Amino acid sequence: MLSIGNELLIGHTLDTNSNWLARQLNTFGWSLQRITLVRDSLDSIPVGIVEALERTPRLLVTLGGLGPTHDDMTLRGLSIAIRRPLVLNGRALELIRKRYERMDEPMRLTQPRKKMAMLPRGAEPLPNPAGTAPGVLLKLGQTTLVSLPGVPREMKEIFKSSIIPILRSFGGYAPHQAYVNLVGIVESTLAPLLENAQRRFPNLYFKSHPRGRETATHSLIQLHIYTVGGEKQGKINQALAFLVKGLTSQIGP
Amino acid sequence: MLSIGNELLIGHTLDTNSNWLARQLNTFGWSLQRITLVRDSLDSIPVGIVEALERTPRLLVTLGGLGPTHDDMTLRGLSIAIRRPLVLNGRALELIRKRYERMDEPMRLTQPRKKMAMLPRGAEPLPNPAGTAPGVLLKLGQTTLVSLPGVPREMKEIFKSSIIPILRSFGGYAPHQAYVNLVGIVESTLAPLLENAQRRFPNLYFKSHPRGRETATHSLIQLHIYTVGGEKQGKINQALAFLVKGLTSQIGP
Repeated sequence: MLSIGNELLIGHTLDTNSNWLARQLNTFGWSLQRITLVRDSLDSIPVGIVEALERTPRLLVTLGGLGPTHDDMTLRGLSIAIRRPLVLNGRALELIRKRYERMDEPMRLTQPRKKMAMLPRGAEPLPNPAGTAPGVLLKLGQTTLVSLPGVPREMKEIFKSSIIPILRSFGGYAPHQAYVNLVGIVESTLAPLLENAQRRFPNLYFKSHPRGRETATHSLIQLHIYTVGGEKQGKINQALAFLVKGLTSQIGP
Repeated sequence: MLSIGNELLIGHTLDTNSNWLARQLNTFGWSLQRITLVRDSLDSIPVGIVEALERTPRLLVTLGGLGPTHDDMTLRGLSIAIRRPLVLNGRALELIRKRYERMDEPMRLTQPRKKMAMLPRGAEPLPNPAGTAPGVLLKLGQTTLVSLPGVPREMKEIFKSSIIPILRSFGGYAPHQAYVNLVGIVESTLAPLLENAQRRFPNLYFKSHPRGRETATHSLIQLHIYTVGGEKQGKINQALAFLVKGLTSQIGP
């Protein structure tokens, strides 16, 4: 996933988009490998895209930079990265034209509005039910590249209408999971037990999240256990029994 | 900046750490170029570090993965990336030993606790005023590499006590900024004016953030104008006058 925008790199905007999408991908059984945040620049964007494509992911999602202003340059960056010219896409133009026609004050297709219909050759627009700039879909070898706008509501609407069907077409296993809160044990005491559990249950993932201050009597650890691949819910129950047994023998009943 | 942790890639945890640090760096006049989020793995971490070092940044910050558990593997990943062995660091061990001694129930130095004192050769520990795992400082050619823990309070405390002095030693200009809310204008109408402003004031950055639904009469745009480099506050006032004049001639007083 590639999140694009200076506002992210100056800390003005918290990147809730990539987090929301990451959670969605996880729910659909995908394993997101990397999220990269880069600036609005025709150096940074192409480099980010080329590096991501070199890892040949099944899916590469870019977020942001599809709008009408001078600093919305994701598609120009994409065009440079994949060496395909931007061409006026008739279907995209039609989507945009209809959108501005239907406004409370109808508006004509000025240059900044047409700009949102300039897509890399071979790309398809994805209708934006909540805004103007269409999403973009492009097949590049084994990779399906999707560009979504940065306005959260628009991103989510395009995701729901156009991306979920793509995710489903690949299959994938939704993870099962459990949360356990552990009070009065510090993380370094728990560590050997977790390592044993991880070895015993390689298709589960054990992650401890310390919460609050670390003291021997009041430490709080949130333990998150979740399945990887097609592992069954039952394995989590087995792991919980294993952990309870280990804790009991270590610190008493 | 490299944020490390599966919890970030499955969308379980929103990466507020990198956002907080980005804002701090911006305040100190630094220009953060990239944030990368990778998984807890001895493939992903070294690759992320090597790629970042190849861009020879002045500063590379890693976040997370310094704790005692099996999936805290940032320092092992760093050791692989820079081809320096992990060695027991006496100062780090002393910091950790004192920490566990001072607990409400004193604890001895077990293996998972000693693990947090295994630093790449040549690294220095940074005291952690709010927790156990020390931060790590390492000079690598032109790059200062800093590893901070992922627990937000610990990350912030080490930043304040050990990183701010490093940032100050490089100099840098704190940005000036202004926010303007524009009601009743859509982004594509504003776009040509913003482009002119950007050309006229190259050392300012103009970024429009659409908020709420886009309609001709009720659209809300938050416009963020900020200085780049050592540009003066006065330039922002000039840019505001330029924008007001442009808007007035375009849509009336």
